[in-house]
Amino acid sequence: MNPLPSTLPVTGRTRLRRKPARGVFDRDAVYRILDEAFLCHLAFVDDGQPYCIPTAYARIGDEVYVHGSAASRTARALGGAIELCLTVTLLDGLVLARSGFNHSMNYRSVMVLGRAREVTVGAEKLRALAAITDHIVPGRWDELRPTSEQELKSTAVLALPIVEASAKVRSGPPLDADEASWPVWAGVVPIVTSYATPVPAPEMAADAPPFDTTIFAGRRPRA
Amino acid sequence: MNPLPSTLPVTGRTRLRRKPARGVFDRDAVYRILDEAFLCHLAFVDDGQPYCIPTAYARIGDEVYVHGSAASRTARALGGAIELCLTVTLLDGLVLARSGFNHSMNYRSVMVLGRAREVTVGAEKLRALAAITDHIVPGRWDELRPTSEQELKSTAVLALPIVEASAKVRSGPPLDADEASWPVWAGVVPIVTSYATPVPAPEMAADAPPFDTTIFAGRRPRA
Repeated sequence: MNPLPSTLPVTGRTRLRRKPARGVFDRDAVYRILDEAFLCHLAFVDDGQPYCIPTAYARIGDEVYVHGSAASRTARALGGAIELCLTVTLLDGLVLARSGFNHSMNYRSVMVLGRAREVTVGAEKLRALAAITDHIVPGRWDELRPTSEQELKSTAVLALPIVEASAKVRSGPPLDADEASWPVWAGVVPIVTSYATPVPAPEMAADAPPFDTTIFAGRRPRA
Repeated sequence: MNPLPSTLPVTGRTRLRRKPARGVFDRDAVYRILDEAFLCHLAFVDDGQPYCIPTAYARIGDEVYVHGSAASRTARALGGAIELCLTVTLLDGLVLARSGFNHSMNYRSVMVLGRAREVTVGAEKLRALAAITDHIVPGRWDELRPTSEQELKSTAVLALPIVEASAKVRSGPPLDADEASWPVWAGVVPIVTSYATPVPAPEMAADAPPFDTTIFAGRRPRA
């Protein structure tokens, strides 16, 4: 049973001032979006300057894990438990209306605000790294050469609790039926992402099995 | 002739501490990435908290334009000419190596740092809005019902000069040939984005032409 409330609190920082109907504070709905994507943009402030960097992530329970080089600017900044914003965006389509003003996009995005804690226990670090890998390529982790102590040491893992978060969702046709007499096509152009044929590395063990693309069944590379 | 140097300055804020070989400071290369994508993540700080929001954009010359509701948190925050970070990420593929540590992604990302100026002159605002629309759907702007004064007034347009910026690029196979004897498939799984069949709006003018998908020829919906 989830000890956290199933509805995320609406705070002054997550409340939508614009188009509040697009706001989603249902924890399950937020988690579904987090679980469909695997690339986030992580914003943090260093010396007064915001930075926004793309990075892989995975959710385990009520936390989002990210990783990076222990020597990176991000890890050094975030290791200090500073405020950050982790944003995930799934772009579903272009919304073409009769006016520029009513053009939009269909999307599902999630914003998680808060402070990350640095994961220092090896077992939890490994679990997070496995989760990130398997979140992107299901079942991959167990096939890999095990992680060395040195690799683990040089990798920083951060956990961001999903306490203050919200989703924003737009779907459906353009909302300008009242202007439908304007003689231009209107509607939605869906955007689809997919995996293309895998390209093998130049060197490969003779006994390496071919890449099993069925592991992606039903999944789309939603970054 | 471009009055700005063709090589972007490497500053303490754009210098890559990690994997400096991935850094790209060539202005044309940065512009190519900016011109291929159309969705960025914009990070700014409000009351000590960083926010990172997805938004459409377009480049005109040496500036990136973004727009939003004049009433939004972003516009209010950015209208104050605060520091921001505009990040664009094109995800090209998954890089599968023999170890978790060497897994990576192929991507091209751009980070533009600086302060935006609010565009207040109507003609420049319209030019920016047309650029954003046509950047996403080529040739769309001229077919649309013209923008009203009220719409223009309620839309905030910001221009971010491309002065302090850099790209980061990874491509190619995994870099662990020395571990190729490990019996697992390794290589790159390319990620492809495409447009699906357009879905017409429920209401449409009888004389509205069908959507011309050829306008996207050679383009991919790279958000």
